[in-house]
Amino acid sequence: MRFTSLKLDSLRDLLVEQLRDLYSAETQLVEALPKMAEAASSRELKSAFEHHLDQTREHVSRLKDVFGEIGEKASGETCEAMKGLIKEGEILLNAEGNPDVRDAGLIGAAQRVEHYEIAGYGTARSLAQRLGDSQIAETLQLTINEEAEADKKLTSIAVGQVNIAAASAQRR
Amino acid sequence: MRFTSLKLDSLRDLLVEQLRDLYSAETQLVEALPKMAEAASSRELKSAFEHHLDQTREHVSRLKDVFGEIGEKASGETCEAMKGLIKEGEILLNAEGNPDVRDAGLIGAAQRVEHYEIAGYGTARSLAQRLGDSQIAETLQLTINEEAEADKKLTSIAVGQVNIAAASAQRR
Repeated sequence: MRFTSLKLDSLRDLLVEQLRDLYSAETQLVEALPKMAEAASSRELKSAFEHHLDQTREHVSRLKDVFGEIGEKASGETCEAMKGLIKEGEILLNAEGNPDVRDAGLIGAAQRVEHYEIAGYGTARSLAQRLGDSQIAETLQLTINEEAEADKKLTSIAVGQVNIAAASAQRR
Repeated sequence: MRFTSLKLDSLRDLLVEQLRDLYSAETQLVEALPKMAEAASSRELKSAFEHHLDQTREHVSRLKDVFGEIGEKASGETCEAMKGLIKEGEILLNAEGNPDVRDAGLIGAAQRVEHYEIAGYGTARSLAQRLGDSQIAETLQLTINEEAEADKKLTSIAVGQVNIAAASAQRR
């Protein structure tokens, strides 16, 4: 919880704030993805979550490098949106009913997370570009590309497999 | 708060759950956008938030129509992710410092919201398509297009104006 209000005197202050938000988001996700992988019924989906866990650990490590480069601490902020996104994911994890339908729901939750990160990294990258920190901007772009690929992969699993299986589940 | 666990027996159950999540997200956003517009310092940004408020009201109305068509109630779910997204927006609303830098932060918060909605509507549209509800899928696609346009407009305001002004703010 933030007890003092945020102070943004410069674009660099905002970049640091954005990076801390992303760092909190990614570390929360490292905790959440193993539960998503465990809950997934489709082998392909389970494997996609496991692969994305590896990528997410790499994203955390990249952010640590960026903080090192700019001489700032990574910690000090909680990403409230990711807290909410993970809470939604947990509701789906604990859902009863058909496993294929639950898989389709897990994909929906995971794609919301990917899109959150794409937007957040997009903002941070634009700020880094504007500040002339082109190396940081490039590092952030690498992560954006991987989040976008992960999102595309989830769409392909949903449309090509999980939603088809889920559609044949018992209708009320 | 959900006291009983979610029950997903069919893809239609999941579609209803997704639509309720989006309905909750949009109604929360109708409350939040006027505060964003009021806090924005850039006239162009203020106007973009006001225009998106009108669009968001239309999205709520479209969702009500969809619920009418499928004979389900719109209410019954709170979108936890949007709660978190709005909490993040409020931290930026209340930020002290340079107004241009705060505007850049507000844009970042708003683009996270847009991306959340694009992902959520994308899932719902895919489910509607799979269930053969092509008219509902088309209605949802209309909203996706408008959210994507709003996101693009915010990028253009950030890159073309707000970030430039914010970069000349006092550096520490």
